Amino acid sequence: MSYMDSELFQPLIEAIVSGDQQAIAEASATFNAADLAEYIESARDDDEGLELLMALPLEQQAKVFGYLSLDRQHELVPRIPDQPLAALVTEMSADERADLFNFLDEDEQHRLFKSLARREREDLRRLASYEEGTAGAIMTSEYAVISSGMTVGAALTLLRRTAPDKETIYQAFVVDQDHKLIGAVSLRNLITAIPSAVVDSLMATGLISARTDTPQEEVARLISRYDLIALPIVDDNETLVGIVTYDDAMDVAEAEATEDMHKGATVGKLEAGLRNSSPFSLYRSRVHWLVILVFANIFTGAGIAYFEDTIAAHLALLFFLPLLVASAGNAGAQSATLMVRGIATGEVTAADWGRLLGKEFLVASALGLTMAAAVMLVGFIRAGVDIATVVAITMVLVVLIGSIIGMLLPFILYKVGFDPATASTPLITTIADVCGVLIYFSVATAVLGLG
Amino acid sequence: MSYMDSELFQPLIEAIVSGDQQAIAEASATFNAADLAEYIESARDDDEGLELLMALPLEQQAKVFGYLSLDRQHELVPRIPDQPLAALVTEMSADERADLFNFLDEDEQHRLFKSLARREREDLRRLASYEEGTAGAIMTSEYAVISSGMTVGAALTLLRRTAPDKETIYQAFVVDQDHKLIGAVSLRNLITAIPSAVVDSLMATGLISARTDTPQEEVARLISRYDLIALPIVDDNETLVGIVTYDDAMDVAEAEATEDMHKGATVGKLEAGLRNSSPFSLYRSRVHWLVILVFANIFTGAGIAYFEDTIAAHLALLFFLPLLVASAGNAGAQSATLMVRGIATGEVTAADWGRLLGKEFLVASALGLTMAAAVMLVGFIRAGVDIATVVAITMVLVVLIGSIIGMLLPFILYKVGFDPATASTPLITTIADVCGVLIYFSVATAVLGLG
Repeated sequence: MSYMDSELFQPLIEAIVSGDQQAIAEASATFNAADLAEYIESARDDDEGLELLMALPLEQQAKVFGYLSLDRQHELVPRIPDQPLAALVTEMSADERADLFNFLDEDEQHRLFKSLARREREDLRRLASYEEGTAGAIMTSEYAVISSGMTVGAALTLLRRTAPDKETIYQAFVVDQDHKLIGAVSLRNLITAIPSAVVDSLMATGLISARTDTPQEEVARLISRYDLIALPIVDDNETLVGIVTYDDAMDVAEAEATEDMHKGATVGKLEAGLRNSSPFSLYRSRVHWLVILVFANIFTGAGIAYFEDTIAAHLALLFFLPLLVASAGNAGAQSATLMVRGIATGEVTAADWGRLLGKEFLVASALGLTMAAAVMLVGFIRAGVDIATVVAITMVLVVLIGSIIGMLLPFILYKVGFDPATASTPLITTIADVCGVLIYFSVATAVLGLG
Repeated sequence: MSYMDSELFQPLIEAIVSGDQQAIAEASATFNAADLAEYIESARDDDEGLELLMALPLEQQAKVFGYLSLDRQHELVPRIPDQPLAALVTEMSADERADLFNFLDEDEQHRLFKSLARREREDLRRLASYEEGTAGAIMTSEYAVISSGMTVGAALTLLRRTAPDKETIYQAFVVDQDHKLIGAVSLRNLITAIPSAVVDSLMATGLISARTDTPQEEVARLISRYDLIALPIVDDNETLVGIVTYDDAMDVAEAEATEDMHKGATVGKLEAGLRNSSPFSLYRSRVHWLVILVFANIFTGAGIAYFEDTIAAHLALLFFLPLLVASAGNAGAQSATLMVRGIATGEVTAADWGRLLGKEFLVASALGLTMAAAVMLVGFIRAGVDIATVVAITMVLVVLIGSIIGMLLPFILYKVGFDPATASTPLITTIADVCGVLIYFSVATAVLGLG
């Protein structure tokens, strides 16, 4: 484990082996829920994980269970008897319960549903209905709410009483009689205000909020940009229906960055991480683009074949081929990655493209000239002044063209509504390869002739 | 702007043009600090930004100023007169003040220092002394602290009184008489506890904490893993010296992900983002690896030159060259990216390498066979059964070797203490190119002979 030395778990393992519930509960009390979850996740023996989980006090048990991957939750649910399962899912936080529900097969969904009280059932039905990847799917219904017109004293009493069921009470949302969101007040402001004041007088208005269908990455971006503890989620009538808290936003941001990095190297979506994915799911996430690019590279091969006469006349040209096409691809990969990440973080917007293109033109020209200078000498020593000239001219052209393609492709994808991260390094490299081959041998044919 | 329509700023712009301080303050009250900062950041006219900033009420002014990039802060400081500057830097949060201080040149540092009261000077001197990229450099000294033995009632009174100066009061840290960290108590627990209880009875112990020299990405990882609002930072004597809050952790995580993505495409560290970087700083961040890789690619060229006789005898082999070396590079880029990201998120650790290598071997073999099948037919149609066989054998070998290199290189870099993200896609591609050329023409020479 990265954070916990496995030796630290020794007393806990002994307690589990002894089967003494009391000893297990005591030994586990010294651990954080995230660490216990990691222990269960990586326990070689499934029974051991289950035994540990079931020996935990209910509140801790629900917390640890919530930290487990959906895969592991899914494995454990059928092995937990009805009574303890009902207690566990009732204690779980509403958003994690809905995630689990959506991951189960129909029989287990039914069993989970049955074990809930009526209010939780309705809540679950609603939360589980939102499309994956939206604010609705990651929000929780356990938010702190205050009615407009309440006094600070009454609001504090209400928050104290309902605190155990709320995801956070540090930000409480003020609603009117139709449950429309009209403001928010922080616990910090509440405890420093005069108890007889009306909450409306100290609430913040003009709140940042999102809708249930707002993409989750946009939710994470809003929370990060405005340093929020919780972002309120409203439906089409401005009615408050949930909140997303900062800790869930952090998880979303991390998952989105991982997905973008993977996409940048043509790896598709993985349900689990690298460590826990099966060989088959890894194969499936990788094979798609690899095969597409095999066929795309046939164009590069065809380009070379087209210039076979020039090559046969000047075999020395081949020496510089990898270096030139690779340089075009590398420069293109740089500009594409800068663009993809800039768009993802919200730093770069559609309005910027003209200015960025101009800047890229400048930068790429300077890069091309530098690299041309670097190969000129090698070219001269190895193959004489003619080929050195061809190589240097080609270098400037391919770096420029590779960079411009790298910059424009993510932009175009973004404008037409595709994910800009599809402009992966291997895709850019492949396009740059084709262009590189055509430019190189065209320049060579023009300068050197066919022999 | 991504979040704010620029038309929304119209009343504000008019107020600024009119020069009416009162009107500016009123118009700006409807905006969030992050949006006002973005407006100032992108204002075409520097004076307009300065005028807006100075017209804001002090608390809002300090908040907006803190959201500005260090570059822009640095530009504005010399243009703010002594009196308002003193008020502004005194009101700024301690961590942002220290960041600004470290970014200024000596004269301006002196001016900023002079404008602070003695307590703030000492605090600044300490905060500014930590190395960039460590917990010390991003922590703030404005944390909520409670002495061991205090009652809940007294603690609440203390928190209420000191709230305006604290970064957060939602997590308060309990210290002994030597200011050693012994526990933490959340405001949630405090307001629901009996006022006469002693805080020690309800505080959490065995806290997750970090030291001043802990790398900032590790700090962000701890906050995310344990869903903390604030992580306490202690010195070598376990004395509490600061906290890092979740919002700063989000910024660090985003910046680290950006840096890793850029590194993955051989783009070096950029102080500003793509949008605000100068052409020269973009050039500097990109040229380094591009030139290195130009020279590395000479080996690939030399590999081709070495097999010139085989190539001259079978020019048809060239058709398949791009496709084979690209496939090796693409498969390698996939496995390298999976590893680099797995290590960065803490999902993959040193203990996993054997199991992951075995899994990679399986996955890469399956990928290689799939891709060999894909090219076999093309090879047969284009160049007959002999070359088709050579191409298919080569494909399996290069995909396998590319993938293994892609997996192992980040791991080796990590083990010897380098940043695994240095195993960039272009570097992997270059290594795979060399291997690909050597394998392809060796197999071809063995199967086909020299003609």
